[in-house]
Amino acid sequence: VNVKAAGELMRAEIAAQPQMIANLLDAGDPALPVVIDHLRRQRPRFVLLAARGTSDHAALYGKYLVEIEWGLPAGLASMSTATLYQANPDLRDVLFLTVSQSGASPDLVDPTARARDCGATTVALTNNPGSALAQAAGHHLDIRAARERAVAATKTYTAELLGLYQLITGLSGTCDASALAALPDAAATTLDRAGRVGELVTEWGSLTRLVATGRGFAYPTAREAAVKIIETSYLSAHAYSGADFLHGPLAMIDHDTLVLAIRTRGADGDSLGPVLERLRPLTTRLIEVGPAAGLPVDTRGMPESLHPIVQILPLQRLALELDISRGLDPDLPRSLSKVTETW
Amino acid sequence: VNVKAAGELMRAEIAAQPQMIANLLDAGDPALPVVIDHLRRQRPRFVLLAARGTSDHAALYGKYLVEIEWGLPAGLASMSTATLYQANPDLRDVLFLTVSQSGASPDLVDPTARARDCGATTVALTNNPGSALAQAAGHHLDIRAARERAVAATKTYTAELLGLYQLITGLSGTCDASALAALPDAAATTLDRAGRVGELVTEWGSLTRLVATGRGFAYPTAREAAVKIIETSYLSAHAYSGADFLHGPLAMIDHDTLVLAIRTRGADGDSLGPVLERLRPLTTRLIEVGPAAGLPVDTRGMPESLHPIVQILPLQRLALELDISRGLDPDLPRSLSKVTETW
Repeated sequence: VNVKAAGELMRAEIAAQPQMIANLLDAGDPALPVVIDHLRRQRPRFVLLAARGTSDHAALYGKYLVEIEWGLPAGLASMSTATLYQANPDLRDVLFLTVSQSGASPDLVDPTARARDCGATTVALTNNPGSALAQAAGHHLDIRAARERAVAATKTYTAELLGLYQLITGLSGTCDASALAALPDAAATTLDRAGRVGELVTEWGSLTRLVATGRGFAYPTAREAAVKIIETSYLSAHAYSGADFLHGPLAMIDHDTLVLAIRTRGADGDSLGPVLERLRPLTTRLIEVGPAAGLPVDTRGMPESLHPIVQILPLQRLALELDISRGLDPDLPRSLSKVTETW
Repeated sequence: VNVKAAGELMRAEIAAQPQMIANLLDAGDPALPVVIDHLRRQRPRFVLLAARGTSDHAALYGKYLVEIEWGLPAGLASMSTATLYQANPDLRDVLFLTVSQSGASPDLVDPTARARDCGATTVALTNNPGSALAQAAGHHLDIRAARERAVAATKTYTAELLGLYQLITGLSGTCDASALAALPDAAATTLDRAGRVGELVTEWGSLTRLVATGRGFAYPTAREAAVKIIETSYLSAHAYSGADFLHGPLAMIDHDTLVLAIRTRGADGDSLGPVLERLRPLTTRLIEVGPAAGLPVDTRGMPESLHPIVQILPLQRLALELDISRGLDPDLPRSLSKVTETW
């Protein structure tokens, strides 16, 4: 009989990330320079990113990178305009970049094939070179995260972020190689310090509502943290950018609402200050996630564009421990399967 | 002494929408044909839409219109890349379309001015021709909804949708004039039938969690319904596209969760079918919003692209009545003000 501790798979995959990042940096993807060279010659003028679920948060990170590092306008693709309404937009000069762990969702494969037909240069970033998506796209980049056994994606998320960083800063010529080299140690230190999370969650037995917030590069982290907590603990977890928070959702905060504020040193952290001033009188549960915060993140010497890769780590642990503290098994989330087939 | 019934302002503005739509259709904005003519000559190749809060849901509707009706790729702008990170992307051939009720949020004014400097053609759609945003943009379109007195936006939302429909289908040459002419009657019928909402909400005293879902053109409606309910009733209201719902958030649904499924006849409604099949066994509270549904919407003879203008009406009433049934005043949402100043 195979007796498995609750969350054993998810815990192991969270813990494996520092070594995974080191391995990915050591052995580069041979396809990457080829794709970068091709895209540099193509000179796309607009970028559309297509993804679902956790990968959609990686795509949002990619959008910030494209705009800030590469200087091109970018948008997240609305797959339904292709799949439901058969829109055939003029996609010449467009890079259509699809991000998917499985590479199997039909609602990503079809829009990618259609984008290619409409004139876009298509690149797919997946964890499965044999997938339908890898075949449908003109170019494929393998995130090489090895098989993810837990239903809740963790290591494939950070591998997607790293793959996007390498692709886009490779295109813009702004890759920070020394900060990249320090990433495995920063990830290990951050996970070590996340031990506190186990204690924290024991005080949250009555918790029903949670909001994660962040601005700029910290916003994809807030989004991913919220969905990770929803899919494992079934809590009502929201995510808002610091700016959108003040347009309506602030009214929802009461003194029992847990607020996770993703705030690292830099422009994003600074800009969150006024939002936190508004939040502090409203709730007794405000946890900052950042370098000198309740949930510490080691981002020393790292540009803001790399923070998301370490920021998410203590939040993955938080989702895991919160779930276990509620008597659930994060490896067995109700109603979900690993590959989501939508149309 | 001025004694006001709870929600009096919001109720009056919801009720005023059919007449407002009729007035807007009768007296066209003289700037509209000028802007359309200019944009046709400019021939933009990519569209970025910028907005916050409720107007962001109108912008999402605009994104679908641009892709489906006009055949151009489109994205929602990430304002923080301009305001926090000083990104200066190459925006030649880009139409930068800003949507804002007040036209006063600095985090929309600055990115619009910067987009103009980066080469974009800038158009602002606001309810205030004297606003800073109207000045910052190269072109201004007035949604002419008259002053909105309630904090929770209702009539300015539908006026923004109508303005976007007229602009974008004017550009694509696909405006359905006869369906537009039928819109005031459809809005009036839909609001008449929404009387049921008052009864429905009395059964929801124990409600704490709510999810709105829809696909394609119904997705902006789901988003707007959720935020409207959050900002008035403080409930935990989520919104997911039908596809994203299955990637994680489905796990959150228990038998007490209220699900609002925005489902009209057409591609978006059809596509929601499989999502509803998954949802039905999970909750006892599933309300469909559509032509033959629990919350009826009159969309007879109307193309899907116009559905959002009537779909939102019973949901605005639902937000209002839900709030009042909880002993609150929708005109006095805690922690909010009418103009949100973020940076």
